[in-house]
Amino acid sequence: MRPYISESTIRVRYQETDQMGVVYHANYLIWFEVGRTDYIRHFGLTYRKLEELGLLLPVVDVQCRFLQPARYDDEILIHTWMEAHNGSKLVFAYEARRKEDQELLTRGSTTHLWTMKTMKRINIRRTHPEIFDRLKHKKVSTC
Amino acid sequence: MRPYISESTIRVRYQETDQMGVVYHANYLIWFEVGRTDYIRHFGLTYRKLEELGLLLPVVDVQCRFLQPARYDDEILIHTWMEAHNGSKLVFAYEARRKEDQELLTRGSTTHLWTMKTMKRINIRRTHPEIFDRLKHKKVSTC
Amino acid sequence: MRPYISESTIRVRYQETDQMGVVYHANYLIWFEVGRTDYIRHFGLTYRKLEELGLLLPVVDVQCRFLQPARYDDEILIHTWMEAHNGSKLVFAYEARRKEDQELLTRGSTTHLWTMKTMKRINIRRTHPEIFDRLKHKKVSTC
Amino acid sequence: MRPYISESTIRVRYQETDQMGVVYHANYLIWFEVGRTDYIRHFGLTYRKLEELGLLLPVVDVQCRFLQPARYDDEILIHTWMEAHNGSKLVFAYEARRKEDQELLTRGSTTHLWTMKTMKRINIRRTHPEIFDRLKHKKVSTC
Repeated sequence: MRPYISESTIRVRYQETDQMGVVYHANYLIWFEVGRTDYIRHFGLTYRKLEELGLLLPVVDVQCRFLQPARYDDEILIHTWMEAHNGSKLVFAYEARRKEDQELLTRGSTTHLWTMKTMKRINIRRTHPEIFDRLKHKKVSTC
Repeated sequence: MRPYISESTIRVRYQETDQMGVVYHANYLIWFEVGRTDYIRHFGLTYRKLEELGLLLPVVDVQCRFLQPARYDDEILIHTWMEAHNGSKLVFAYEARRKEDQELLTRGSTTHLWTMKTMKRINIRRTHPEIFDRLKHKKVSTC
Repeated sequence: MRPYISESTIRVRYQETDQMGVVYHANYLIWFEVGRTDYIRHFGLTYRKLEELGLLLPVVDVQCRFLQPARYDDEILIHTWMEAHNGSKLVFAYEARRKEDQELLTRGSTTHLWTMKTMKRINIRRTHPEIFDRLKHKKVSTC
Repeated sequence: MRPYISESTIRVRYQETDQMGVVYHANYLIWFEVGRTDYIRHFGLTYRKLEELGLLLPVVDVQCRFLQPARYDDEILIHTWMEAHNGSKLVFAYEARRKEDQELLTRGSTTHLWTMKTMKRINIRRTHPEIFDRLKHKKVSTC
């Protein structure tokens, strides 16, 4: 039994390269955002809907290791999974791989807090239990 | 008598380069945004305040010519002036120059509409005459 | 008989929005870059290969009209076609539409020059006729 | 005796905000890049010159904590210092503060390796001792 892992495919844009000839490092954080958007969508939710319900999930911590560079026009796979979630705090983990040879490029994690639009912290286990249940550390037999 | 021209100085960030070794073209539009923010500030207003008053100034048209490339760590001057303003529609014009030798790099313009937060168009000559007067095609003897 | 029109699909990233709650205008230029990369790929070429051959295609002019805003998580279709190409100068045209209802959001064009890595201008009709022929204003019966 | 701390001032651009109404988190990494560029400049070097000498300083690790949001048009101070440097690996640390009230917004660090253009790792203590000496964990009595 393993946690659900979502897969997003990204084609590197010219704009995402820098004069070193590789992808500028901060872009991986944007790709991780694409990864967690797709992750949430898998559970029949969208982050857009969560915002319409008045919920926000701001990033409070980022960790990222850069192992190999990505290059223009590469196809990149972003694998995203949930490492922890207690209704108040949520940790996503990510791996970026070059699609062609599955080479691991980057590994990272982001920590988020559930807040209302006012940035007031909440615990969705109490305020929105149905959302907490949906996102609950789901175990699936295959990924 | 010439119109007021504001000057903003920008240092090129590594992130703004691409693998061609020069600044990626879309960044000039971001620098123009810095230019018009500084332009408006000169008149004792800030775009931030305008938004707090419920006003928006979305871009509806962009024109831009790229003559010479900018490079990492170059200092760039953005000169901004108002080409037209009738209270409903506003046109800014821009020149980007390399500070070191004043070489002209890029020339552009952006057209904006005044709207409310709902994106409903308004004419600030009627709704906010005091703002219109402040921004009015001011003639100054020197720039 | 109509020119070939490529179609690229883009999902709006949170990073691409601004505090107006819509996509920041400069991002359309990045999406147009995705559009022309896909356009070129259709002809059995890649822009990456062109660069490996020592060719560059810098942008010298951009025109863009913004009709309707795009929003976070929208799927956007970028339609790209070649308006003109004489071996020295190349003009791409673009339309961005919301996929859901085909609403036209943005219309634009970019003009490019063929150059060598040194930024020296060339005419690929003479220097690389096989590439010129491939990209030649192809007429196809359906798009 | 304290290490040298450089100070860079950044005005938040509209483009750097997202629909949450605050600065999108990945932009802090770009501001940190501005910080270390200014840090290096203080020692009579520029990162641009280092690249002209065939040296690169790619990022291999990023850590960042987000404490308070930055907003459009805020002036932000980036304080940068060197935490460690052995000629092969270099660690920069950063703090971002709102200028107006000195409130701490973000705290981070980036780890870099010295490489040649080929991405081959080097130790500049051996290959470029004069650069190593300049950047050496300088103690200054005031910052």
